[in-house]
Amino acid sequence: MAKFVKFTKLRSSTDSTFWAKFVELKIDKFKLDEKSVNLWGNYSLQSLNENNNNPLVLDFTSFNEDLEILNNNSSVLCFGHMINTNTFEAFRQINPEQFINSMGKDIINNIQDGTVLQNPWKLSLFLVLAYSDLKKYKFYYWVAHPTPLKLPEMYYQESPQSINEEFTARQVEDLCQHFLQLDSRTKSYFTVSISKEGKLSIIDLATGVETINAREKQSQEYSEIYFAFYDPCTTSNPGWPLRNLLCLLCWHCPIYYFSKIIKFISIRGNKAQKSIVFKLKTKEYENYKDIRDALFMSHLVGWESNSNDKLGPTIVNLSDTMDPAKLSDRAINLNLKLMKWRLAPDLDLEKICNLKCLLLGAGTLGCSVARVLLGWGVNNITFVDSSNVSHSNTVRQSLYSHQDAVKHKYKAYAAKDALLNIRPSINAEGVVLHIPMPGHVVGKSMLDSTKQSLEKLEELVENNDVVFLLLDSREARWLPTVLCAAKNKIAINAALGFDSYTVQRHGTRNFTSPASPDLDARNPRGMDLGCYFCNDVTQPGNSQTDRTLDQQCTVSRPGLSQIAAGLAVELLVALLQHSQGIEAEALVGNSRDNISPSDTELVGLLGCIPHTIRGSLWNYDTQLTITHRFTSCTACSVPIIAEYKNRGLSFVLDACNIPNYLEKLSGLEQILKRPDLDELCYALDSISDEDEDDGNDVIP
Amino acid sequence: MAKFVKFTKLRSSTDSTFWAKFVELKIDKFKLDEKSVNLWGNYSLQSLNENNNNPLVLDFTSFNEDLEILNNNSSVLCFGHMINTNTFEAFRQINPEQFINSMGKDIINNIQDGTVLQNPWKLSLFLVLAYSDLKKYKFYYWVAHPTPLKLPEMYYQESPQSINEEFTARQVEDLCQHFLQLDSRTKSYFTVSISKEGKLSIIDLATGVETINAREKQSQEYSEIYFAFYDPCTTSNPGWPLRNLLCLLCWHCPIYYFSKIIKFISIRGNKAQKSIVFKLKTKEYENYKDIRDALFMSHLVGWESNSNDKLGPTIVNLSDTMDPAKLSDRAINLNLKLMKWRLAPDLDLEKICNLKCLLLGAGTLGCSVARVLLGWGVNNITFVDSSNVSHSNTVRQSLYSHQDAVKHKYKAYAAKDALLNIRPSINAEGVVLHIPMPGHVVGKSMLDSTKQSLEKLEELVENNDVVFLLLDSREARWLPTVLCAAKNKIAINAALGFDSYTVQRHGTRNFTSPASPDLDARNPRGMDLGCYFCNDVTQPGNSQTDRTLDQQCTVSRPGLSQIAAGLAVELLVALLQHSQGIEAEALVGNSRDNISPSDTELVGLLGCIPHTIRGSLWNYDTQLTITHRFTSCTACSVPIIAEYKNRGLSFVLDACNIPNYLEKLSGLEQILKRPDLDELCYALDSISDEDEDDGNDVIP
Repeated sequence: MAKFVKFTKLRSSTDSTFWAKFVELKIDKFKLDEKSVNLWGNYSLQSLNENNNNPLVLDFTSFNEDLEILNNNSSVLCFGHMINTNTFEAFRQINPEQFINSMGKDIINNIQDGTVLQNPWKLSLFLVLAYSDLKKYKFYYWVAHPTPLKLPEMYYQESPQSINEEFTARQVEDLCQHFLQLDSRTKSYFTVSISKEGKLSIIDLATGVETINAREKQSQEYSEIYFAFYDPCTTSNPGWPLRNLLCLLCWHCPIYYFSKIIKFISIRGNKAQKSIVFKLKTKEYENYKDIRDALFMSHLVGWESNSNDKLGPTIVNLSDTMDPAKLSDRAINLNLKLMKWRLAPDLDLEKICNLKCLLLGAGTLGCSVARVLLGWGVNNITFVDSSNVSHSNTVRQSLYSHQDAVKHKYKAYAAKDALLNIRPSINAEGVVLHIPMPGHVVGKSMLDSTKQSLEKLEELVENNDVVFLLLDSREARWLPTVLCAAKNKIAINAALGFDSYTVQRHGTRNFTSPASPDLDARNPRGMDLGCYFCNDVTQPGNSQTDRTLDQQCTVSRPGLSQIAAGLAVELLVALLQHSQGIEAEALVGNSRDNISPSDTELVGLLGCIPHTIRGSLWNYDTQLTITHRFTSCTACSVPIIAEYKNRGLSFVLDACNIPNYLEKLSGLEQILKRPDLDELCYALDSISDEDEDDGNDVIP
Repeated sequence: MAKFVKFTKLRSSTDSTFWAKFVELKIDKFKLDEKSVNLWGNYSLQSLNENNNNPLVLDFTSFNEDLEILNNNSSVLCFGHMINTNTFEAFRQINPEQFINSMGKDIINNIQDGTVLQNPWKLSLFLVLAYSDLKKYKFYYWVAHPTPLKLPEMYYQESPQSINEEFTARQVEDLCQHFLQLDSRTKSYFTVSISKEGKLSIIDLATGVETINAREKQSQEYSEIYFAFYDPCTTSNPGWPLRNLLCLLCWHCPIYYFSKIIKFISIRGNKAQKSIVFKLKTKEYENYKDIRDALFMSHLVGWESNSNDKLGPTIVNLSDTMDPAKLSDRAINLNLKLMKWRLAPDLDLEKICNLKCLLLGAGTLGCSVARVLLGWGVNNITFVDSSNVSHSNTVRQSLYSHQDAVKHKYKAYAAKDALLNIRPSINAEGVVLHIPMPGHVVGKSMLDSTKQSLEKLEELVENNDVVFLLLDSREARWLPTVLCAAKNKIAINAALGFDSYTVQRHGTRNFTSPASPDLDARNPRGMDLGCYFCNDVTQPGNSQTDRTLDQQCTVSRPGLSQIAAGLAVELLVALLQHSQGIEAEALVGNSRDNISPSDTELVGLLGCIPHTIRGSLWNYDTQLTITHRFTSCTACSVPIIAEYKNRGLSFVLDACNIPNYLEKLSGLEQILKRPDLDELCYALDSISDEDEDDGNDVIP
């Protein structure tokens, strides 16, 4: 009795690039979608391993829908589907038998309707059932190569022979050449014909089957026909792919299949010399049609064993092997991209990540603002500060450690280093720079350094998109306010009192065709909103002189800076995601409960954009207020900006050194002399700032 | 012509303990007070340095008002005053001449009214003018030893002689003995009398002056009188203290002063052997009274030179020399104590610093909460968390670095280490512990570990004052809520949605005499407030099963956690500083604008204490809402707590393993069957939680 044929099972292998690419697609494209994903696996022809099966390799190219670029001589392609469940629970609850039967039924259909005759790659199919833990980079997956269970037993009619015994050297050489010229997708199954003259040629499966069927009818043998398949297996048995080829022959040439000796070539590797010829035959059956029907109605089988030789999923943990810095970047983006899955699909994360942020002040607010920017994935952060880390800073300024205070590091540098310690790929910079301030007289000895500071500050404002004003005095905010207005940059201002805070966006400025602000609009546009100085009736002066210790330090309830910093960054991000951007209409307090989401002038993707948020920890209230642009503002009005643009450094020096210079220049001095000042002050729409950190006088 | 006398100037030296003590007093006691501070300086008798003057030493004992403990044989005490200005500007603007004249005028008065005759230490006085930069530990100070400018010139009648030449060995020995027995305050000036028999005795200044004046009248010399003074100077000249002694003699025995040779003993060191005898005399004046008047009306002089031999302040920078860990502690306290100077004088910082806080969950909220607690100077923080730092955590969880993620450290340990890196003296702990949860079935294999977890958690809740619920699922908060209710601990709860947050304090529970909550109170007391579960109509279950990635992670706008954490800690601190503590009446939203500060049931030192704060980043609104205590709550109701107290572990296991166990036990199941459920739900006063991080169903 002849020996019956066993089929060596297939094995697959996933490259880490496969999962990396999948993570990317899952987060950016598939999101919550659990639909089947098409894949291309490949068997390498080059690196055939003697001891093991040549595995079906899945890598980052597996997701490529464009097959042309994958058509190369060095591999055999195999088509497949992957289902990735969103939860581990769903993964566990999938019944493997049902899964392979429903997902693999294409194989049966493609055989029966003849599709595979023209598209031989459809005769094999692999299935991946997976669950990916994207937080931990842990992947659970299980691969199947579906094939009908009830394949009739086949028997060896001769012992398997090397191709070199069956064919002449010339024929082997031709086979090799022709095979390599085949399309990667058609290398998996084809027919080899040997003419009477001994000429070897490759014909497709359809022609092979036709030839066989014709020959059966005419009973004449004008050529030898061999059915060939790429065989990733290296044992003396034929590999799993032969099963589906047998099914095809059983369906399309049943008489031949159930009565004749069929010759197969198992193509192994790229040289073909190692290929094997199998001559096989079924048992004789009384009613072969029953056998055939049973075959095509049987369940599908073909789940791979895992590395423990058990039927079950393989677990890949890539958190250790992936480059930590890249892992970190990917993980950070993951959290952000999750927002797009369900909550804010239209969120433009690129806009946020690519933002260049300049943080003036690396104290309590500066550190907290940087941390929220980190959370939003902002890649470019520059700190400007002239002071050093002191021991009283570390518990409130969240980027500094005890060692920074011991080493008395510059805050700007310590803050930069802290960001790099959190996210190595971030583009962070620290600049030690003293900002020139009105009322802080610049003597001769300081001329050079003041010039350099101004130039550097101008360069920094120019090169950034957003400027955060997080400084510890009112006058330190003056020059940055001038520069932001002159260069039309987004300016976000935050200031702390003891138990209250103010967070504000500056309005935009148009110096080419300035108009008076529209004071009547219920929700003023960006161009009509004020800056930090628009409700002042004196120019900023030296507030550091003659201040006691508790006035020098921002004495505030420690939770306050986190709250204000959180609001400052969220205000910025909401503004960036608003269709009108910085020109967005400002939400005011009393209209807060009656917002129509369809009012796109007011409502952006992330909600409304107030001008000024004032909050208190005393009664947990938040007020949204408005200050209008002031045409005699000492920081952002037309005469000020014109003079700055004209005279640069000498303007700044005059502002620092000459008392009331800015009041004169802006026209504020004239206004203060007017008899109707009280009414005017009322019109200025000002709100008491008495609780703020700098304690300067403003109109009550 | 005889040589006229030059006086060697004095020198002082401040020990670092002087400034450390001053910083303490300034922050805790003096605060903004700029009034003069009394000081005791001392000259050491032991360590007389040959080359230099023996400096007037100021150290931490200088502030001691209780002189007795300072009365020792090893030093000579000197009295003084210090003025410390609050600002550098004020320091700079003080005119030194005016300062010494006004502050030193006591010297003149004390001489003229005879006070110094009884209290010789009042004959010398030192003045310190200082400005202390408490942020940088930099001290500017300038010391003066006031004495009238127009002291008549004195001339040596003999060359200065060693005491050993003037006195017998026995007399020297006696002088030495007597001197050492003098009070530290009277060592500075006294009289030495030698009887006809050669016996040396020490008499006070008053007796000395009396003796001299009597002798002038009676013209008989029955004993030798020497005026003695402790002389810190080591030159051959007499030291500065002699000047005021001369003034005293000029005033109280003018005839003697202007006509006779006066003998002085300059006492040097503790052995007296090195002391010097000076015999001095003034010029002859025609009208000595004019000279005397001029002397007593003249300006005062006596400012020390600094180390550059210039008249000007000395700068001491102690930031480098002080122990960094202690510096850090002092600096941290400084920031806090500044609040008491002006803004909240009654703030009880001890209560906050000594607080023991248990943070359940060391994720985004846990890290931010810990940072605000650090800012408040809280000394005892324990983290409980069972997970590890992953790469997606670092940019949002503000205690972790990239390296923590690479090393995959347990969050509880990494968080503890981070706190120690910020404040080395903090008492921080990390506990890796998995909290048993309803719906998460405990199998046999987990029994032991569940038992241990429960015991550890019970111990932790017991040993802490406050429990923060910062966990990532609703069911994880159940057991901590039960434990806090059973042990009556302060529980603060925070939860995040995408752009909204909830911060809440749990109500208190009284299980000895439970009453129905008063639903009518406008501002319910702590005992009538609900817990996190009081508005649920199902028991907490396994919400982790079958959740997609974006549901597993808290997908929230990054600023949100900082805001919620800031509010959670500030709510706690406000509560601690409220006279009613955790029983304080809850502020509700609609009464926020009409708060009477005198309503002490409602308003605490740091404002009002709501029950639940709900905020949104969409329209920047904050709502203050109330949930009443629910008598069938699945976490804090009487039947639940009674069963927990009765059965401990087996109760917890039943809660984890038996579906609906808690609903049955609490009576909730019965209520849900009632036909009037809809009305009941309305009465439960619930608010939609649909935006919260755990997504469990609650009554809308």
